[in-house]
Amino acid sequence: MRITWQVTVADLTVLDATEATIGYTFGGREPIARIRPGEPVRLRTRDCFGGRVTSTADLPSRVCRFPFLNPVTGPLHVVGAEAGDTLAVHLIALTPVGEVGFSSTFPHFGALTGTAATAMLHPPLEERVWEYALDHRGQTVRYTARKSAFTADLPMVPMLGTVGVAPAHGEVRPSVVPGVHGGNLDTPLMRAGTTLYLPVGRGGALLAVGDGHARQGDGELCGVAVEVAMDVTLAVEVLSGVTTLTPRLETDTAIMSIGVARPLEDTYRAAHRDLVEHVSAMTGLDALDAYQLVSQAGRAHVGNVVDENYTIAAAIDKELLGGAQPYLGAHRRLRAVEVRR
Amino acid sequence: MRITWQVTVADLTVLDATEATIGYTFGGREPIARIRPGEPVRLRTRDCFGGRVTSTADLPSRVCRFPFLNPVTGPLHVVGAEAGDTLAVHLIALTPVGEVGFSSTFPHFGALTGTAATAMLHPPLEERVWEYALDHRGQTVRYTARKSAFTADLPMVPMLGTVGVAPAHGEVRPSVVPGVHGGNLDTPLMRAGTTLYLPVGRGGALLAVGDGHARQGDGELCGVAVEVAMDVTLAVEVLSGVTTLTPRLETDTAIMSIGVARPLEDTYRAAHRDLVEHVSAMTGLDALDAYQLVSQAGRAHVGNVVDENYTIAAAIDKELLGGAQPYLGAHRRLRAVEVRR
Amino acid sequence: MRITWQVTVADLTVLDATEATIGYTFGGREPIARIRPGEPVRLRTRDCFGGRVTSTADLPSRVCRFPFLNPVTGPLHVVGAEAGDTLAVHLIALTPVGEVGFSSTFPHFGALTGTAATAMLHPPLEERVWEYALDHRGQTVRYTARKSAFTADLPMVPMLGTVGVAPAHGEVRPSVVPGVHGGNLDTPLMRAGTTLYLPVGRGGALLAVGDGHARQGDGELCGVAVEVAMDVTLAVEVLSGVTTLTPRLETDTAIMSIGVARPLEDTYRAAHRDLVEHVSAMTGLDALDAYQLVSQAGRAHVGNVVDENYTIAAAIDKELLGGAQPYLGAHRRLRAVEVRR
Amino acid sequence: MRITWQVTVADLTVLDATEATIGYTFGGREPIARIRPGEPVRLRTRDCFGGRVTSTADLPSRVCRFPFLNPVTGPLHVVGAEAGDTLAVHLIALTPVGEVGFSSTFPHFGALTGTAATAMLHPPLEERVWEYALDHRGQTVRYTARKSAFTADLPMVPMLGTVGVAPAHGEVRPSVVPGVHGGNLDTPLMRAGTTLYLPVGRGGALLAVGDGHARQGDGELCGVAVEVAMDVTLAVEVLSGVTTLTPRLETDTAIMSIGVARPLEDTYRAAHRDLVEHVSAMTGLDALDAYQLVSQAGRAHVGNVVDENYTIAAAIDKELLGGAQPYLGAHRRLRAVEVRR
Repeated sequence: MRITWQVTVADLTVLDATEATIGYTFGGREPIARIRPGEPVRLRTRDCFGGRVTSTADLPSRVCRFPFLNPVTGPLHVVGAEAGDTLAVHLIALTPVGEVGFSSTFPHFGALTGTAATAMLHPPLEERVWEYALDHRGQTVRYTARKSAFTADLPMVPMLGTVGVAPAHGEVRPSVVPGVHGGNLDTPLMRAGTTLYLPVGRGGALLAVGDGHARQGDGELCGVAVEVAMDVTLAVEVLSGVTTLTPRLETDTAIMSIGVARPLEDTYRAAHRDLVEHVSAMTGLDALDAYQLVSQAGRAHVGNVVDENYTIAAAIDKELLGGAQPYLGAHRRLRAVEVRR
Repeated sequence: MRITWQVTVADLTVLDATEATIGYTFGGREPIARIRPGEPVRLRTRDCFGGRVTSTADLPSRVCRFPFLNPVTGPLHVVGAEAGDTLAVHLIALTPVGEVGFSSTFPHFGALTGTAATAMLHPPLEERVWEYALDHRGQTVRYTARKSAFTADLPMVPMLGTVGVAPAHGEVRPSVVPGVHGGNLDTPLMRAGTTLYLPVGRGGALLAVGDGHARQGDGELCGVAVEVAMDVTLAVEVLSGVTTLTPRLETDTAIMSIGVARPLEDTYRAAHRDLVEHVSAMTGLDALDAYQLVSQAGRAHVGNVVDENYTIAAAIDKELLGGAQPYLGAHRRLRAVEVRR
Repeated sequence: MRITWQVTVADLTVLDATEATIGYTFGGREPIARIRPGEPVRLRTRDCFGGRVTSTADLPSRVCRFPFLNPVTGPLHVVGAEAGDTLAVHLIALTPVGEVGFSSTFPHFGALTGTAATAMLHPPLEERVWEYALDHRGQTVRYTARKSAFTADLPMVPMLGTVGVAPAHGEVRPSVVPGVHGGNLDTPLMRAGTTLYLPVGRGGALLAVGDGHARQGDGELCGVAVEVAMDVTLAVEVLSGVTTLTPRLETDTAIMSIGVARPLEDTYRAAHRDLVEHVSAMTGLDALDAYQLVSQAGRAHVGNVVDENYTIAAAIDKELLGGAQPYLGAHRRLRAVEVRR
Repeated sequence: MRITWQVTVADLTVLDATEATIGYTFGGREPIARIRPGEPVRLRTRDCFGGRVTSTADLPSRVCRFPFLNPVTGPLHVVGAEAGDTLAVHLIALTPVGEVGFSSTFPHFGALTGTAATAMLHPPLEERVWEYALDHRGQTVRYTARKSAFTADLPMVPMLGTVGVAPAHGEVRPSVVPGVHGGNLDTPLMRAGTTLYLPVGRGGALLAVGDGHARQGDGELCGVAVEVAMDVTLAVEVLSGVTTLTPRLETDTAIMSIGVARPLEDTYRAAHRDLVEHVSAMTGLDALDAYQLVSQAGRAHVGNVVDENYTIAAAIDKELLGGAQPYLGAHRRLRAVEVRR
């Protein structure tokens, strides 16, 4: 099955989230469309529940059936991407869809409960759903307690939890797992204006995205963010022959390396070792001098402490690095992509 | 591509390890043969280097090309196995092939070196290969130091590092990774006389085996055992509708649950929680009473502390459990399978 | 030995860092002075090297002798503090002393090297010292590479790495170890304007402080910050009969709980469980509602990933909590303490 | 306070467990007696509950008051021991006292429950006590379920959970914590016939022992073994000027290194790195050749996965090491100590 462009408005490709365009794995699926570097695409993603949680009465473990969680829209075949290249994915715009988002606890999932790996003898915590009112104008989401009268307005900070490509060597992974191929990285830094660099595992890259969050705390403590359907506008670039070992991010001001590992100190280590090597490559500093600079200037952003692999993004400001441009300026070029409607 | 019986001697199916019968993933490949429950099969496995290390001069990182490591012979379609069933895999005989085995260090792999996850700034340790002479008569392997005159004879204890089925939900994993589907469990307890219980992920189960070790220390410290090609004789049984959540082992005297997780305390936890639940189910003890019994009578066998997931097998003697037979006596039945030549 | 007030200017107690006023443990030492709640005290701390690193030629492993690292000034007997109380320690001002700070690598210490616990076979990384010029007027510190011509100015953000009291039950811990008693927490949030809450372990609390940093990256990656002697002005309050289970912080805008544990996911868990309980106590939210709020609004600040215990501070903004005042408003009162010279 | 020999029978020193001879810390206490190398001493230890659990109705959290858990008898001043030396402690005999032992769950303690570090939101598991009948003649202990009619006889394998000396540099640690100084190592290998090597931290070493177990499973899963008072007969030797970095064990057939760390893979690493170095020192093998030998011949014995630090003992058979005698033959000499009554 190969679905080509579904809708084209001017030169903007628009893809809806339908049963034909969503899936639950990275790898193992045929592309739903082809996209070209530099040409923006817009697509809709369903929330991590597949839209089946519609009120606080809809317990996820009842209305969702594993493994049909965390649908991703795609994959998109990127013209010209070959195994071994780097794919730059720039998020131009992220717009939560609808008036409400949902969060929940989920049996034996989250950081403060026994899980399959951190196996305990405790019964699961209560499964409970929270509904958040989205205020698009005020750019806030409203938390409402379930067991007492209490509300709080939190800033809306839209992000994508899941952005990934097909893994190398024919591997197929569930969309809920983060890895070197990206996937469910669940880092709050995947916002509009950010570029993600991923290693291309197969020809065409096979990019897919999903798991929009209206906002998320550091670590995604209970395992579930403020989950929303999302309108995603993105553009990509292919860096042929450029190797990327672990996902990296770039914003206008910073570069980051994402560690994807367990235990969490390994996540921290993998993120920072890659950042040290990146800083060294960008500045000509030797490894120890780069290690020292990151030791004093680095920031560690905790992504998730709940998934099969944890994530931490290690960041440093580009202005400290003497003007070097990573990835040959891909972020700057993608930042300049214009979206005509 | 579907290869059927290659050679049949009496009622013993024999499969060689050829380019057509080996692979590097669990899932993602067509079966090379069909086997029936209770009918023994014999197959040959290549060593983890694919046979390309033939002397101490053959550094694995030079003669092997990633991901073509850890080949598994198979997969075998098991007649009658359906997703959700349990597959019992009984190892009838394991015979190392040839006169020598090899071990090595490998760059950035092993428990006492920085790795991709436990990321360090150190350069890799020296890559070095050791050749072990196999004494089939005396059932020993001879360690020979490389940098001084020193030898030691160690008992030969043949085992299979890698036994697994296709994961559920279309997932495809490299053969070097252990998981709930089995795979590279690297536990020294996978010996002749042992039955492994695995959750069937897809119709036909798609069993594959490889990574024979003439012996291995607990944890596979440097990441590489005494690697050998192996003649494997096995028989299987399908337990329809019986759910298994994590790999389990049974010997004539003990039952075991294998935890597959990181960090290593989670591995320990997952193994023991499953064993507690298994003991509870077999004896009628409530969860806390079973927890107490395992606390005093349990043994923890460290499998690997080097792979993408670590493994520990938690064991308890069956004689303590009042005569209960797990899995409806599958081990006893498979133990009785006769192999005619 | 009991040294009383050394110098008193108006009602400000001033203590220098002399051989008589510094030590290397929490617990096990007699107080050097008595202080009263609400009365400010100023004291000098030596840098973590005890001032023995004076140029990039002074390798710490040569000029410092273990365990004479990380000296703390104190302890101070707090009048009225009893075991089981909470001590609020408010940092009024932190001023790095002198024109330079130092950082270094240290053999088998840091996050990207093998250590005593994360034991490897690698030789230690090169030991190297970096000298930072302190610009007090511009509030920056200047990084200067050692092996190439490269400098970078980083914001000066003075903080104290080590603030603690005597542990309970007669325990004595080295000043380099963080614990429930505080100690070497190494969190960048211990700045002027912050209040730290610690459980009092013994009568008089026996507060000591040290390990000033002109700034530090998240996690103290290489194990050593920009180390400086520091002039510290602080004031304390005793909350009699108020129990604190793990160190907490309060700023004008946020409350935080500090997890002190290994592995790092346990650090994350301990911090967030305590924050959830604190939020629940302050707002009346039940545990799950508080869990949900922290899941979306919480921030995780990585302190150190290098010491015997790791630290993470879990934070939430007070404005989300409906105006509740933790610890009976101690932070607000201490914020108002005036220092006359 | 210095208590000298309490009772002397022939040349055997006998010390009872009284309020004057027990304590709850390593370090911070005056010696209760002096012992000389080579002269056996017999002492009584209380069980970890201090004898306050006398039936299954005595819940530990009610009858015991923290920190008065895990009493150790001692400390004993060892004549001639100086900081930096190694103390060899040989267990000549271990005899459980009385007719019953007890085990229990304990709130928020154990491997399969949330704890202070592995912090969860679950309420504690039920606290329950099990009474074990001790059959001294048959050398078994009888497990009796609490909620159903089920018993099992397990081999009696007496061991000491806690053997330690005063830590270096004035540190004082609770007796429930394992460390480089020994302490609550909780390894089933601390049996009669075993020699433990510990680094002497202060003059006189200040040896103390306690926490007898009639038996224990690997990892002390629920946190509590079959706890008994114990009659301990031991003899010591001082190895002047011999440095020991982490506790080591020696039996008639094997040497072992005990890793004491978190997370559990670090425990495994620390144990095996020390064993590799020990093997290298005993055989002249270079580090990589020793690494390889331990990789194939090493055994990993899980001690505890429940205390503030975890323990694993890495072992290798001495017969593989070409007849070398560690610690100048201390084990052999201590093995020959005769106890006259």
